[in-house]
Amino acid sequence: MSLKFDYIRDPMAIYEASFKQIRQETDLTRLPESLHALAIRVVHAAANPEIVELIDWSDGAAEAGMEALQSGKPVLTDAQMVVHGIIRTKLPNKNEVICTLRMDGVPGMAQRLDTTRSAAAVELWQPWVEGAVVAVGNAPTALFHLMERISEGWPKPAVILGFPVGFIGAAESKRALADHAAELGVPYITLHSRLGGSAMAAAAVNALAGGNEE
Amino acid sequence: MSLKFDYIRDPMAIYEASFKQIRQETDLTRLPESLHALAIRVVHAAANPEIVELIDWSDGAAEAGMEALQSGKPVLTDAQMVVHGIIRTKLPNKNEVICTLRMDGVPGMAQRLDTTRSAAAVELWQPWVEGAVVAVGNAPTALFHLMERISEGWPKPAVILGFPVGFIGAAESKRALADHAAELGVPYITLHSRLGGSAMAAAAVNALAGGNEE
Repeated sequence: MSLKFDYIRDPMAIYEASFKQIRQETDLTRLPESLHALAIRVVHAAANPEIVELIDWSDGAAEAGMEALQSGKPVLTDAQMVVHGIIRTKLPNKNEVICTLRMDGVPGMAQRLDTTRSAAAVELWQPWVEGAVVAVGNAPTALFHLMERISEGWPKPAVILGFPVGFIGAAESKRALADHAAELGVPYITLHSRLGGSAMAAAAVNALAGGNEE
Repeated sequence: MSLKFDYIRDPMAIYEASFKQIRQETDLTRLPESLHALAIRVVHAAANPEIVELIDWSDGAAEAGMEALQSGKPVLTDAQMVVHGIIRTKLPNKNEVICTLRMDGVPGMAQRLDTTRSAAAVELWQPWVEGAVVAVGNAPTALFHLMERISEGWPKPAVILGFPVGFIGAAESKRALADHAAELGVPYITLHSRLGGSAMAAAAVNALAGGNEE
């Protein structure tokens, strides 16, 4: 017995059919045009057109993120999976993609600060955070910790892409981002609810990297 | 202004609260006990208890996967994101985790075989595939290609964890896995529909690695 399945094998054809299908099923009318590419890529990552309803943002956030990438600012993220979901060849200016989670000293710092490693790893973002694109794709504690540090006077990133996922703290951290971004003076794009994750966070970065192409 | 948010910072407390919440919201009654830990970890990754309804499996698949890991067999996967979602310290026997996608020669092989890089990368699995745990977390074409090769006489993996995601081919590839696994002689665990992805595929591996603890 030798099986031969009937499926599309050409990568460009798969890519095009995929995004065509997403466009057909996704209602983008509530989003400004600057967020369309990002919404479509996030829908692609989630395989779910309905999550468009959960996207929230501040005015100019997508533009701020695109500009930051074009000017060569780094991407800071809380998770190695986000690092590996970002398409390097799309990044417009050889931007660094930095995840500090596994750096030396993080476990000890987590103990000293009495928090998670993901939050402690944010401490190491300070030298890069000014004007950077921050993509949180896993840990609510990382997002909370970053907002606290910014409120204490840290330099501000260009945009926070808030996509933590999960049952404890994720929805709350994204609600807090939307509620406090204005007083923090940081543009944001987020996905409310428990849903999120590294694939969606990486998709958001890839969309901003593509400068609004799809 | 200095913000201080009220959230759980203790990683063990977050972990426990998370899995407690999942247990409360997830109806596991349709699953055999050997799949409970896997289902709970997949729900955790997806942040969605309802996807339990989409899990499909063949008898003994979870046991076959656990045994393969305990005996030191490698994990083969189609995506770097899966590699980075697998918790190495959970793996019971220093198991290798192998993703061939970025190996030399894959782009050329994709052209020669007239298929995607993900499918071409499966060609390089042959030396490791016998008795291995295969976790497909991204590309339908990788899953289709593997099934074709097995049908042509390749050695069989211990189990296929089928979690491709997306709008084109994902649901079809998982339907084909469930329909043809018996004739291929390979146990499987999959998640029907378009949903899936590297986080869920890694969660499935982590569950089997944990030997059914949660």
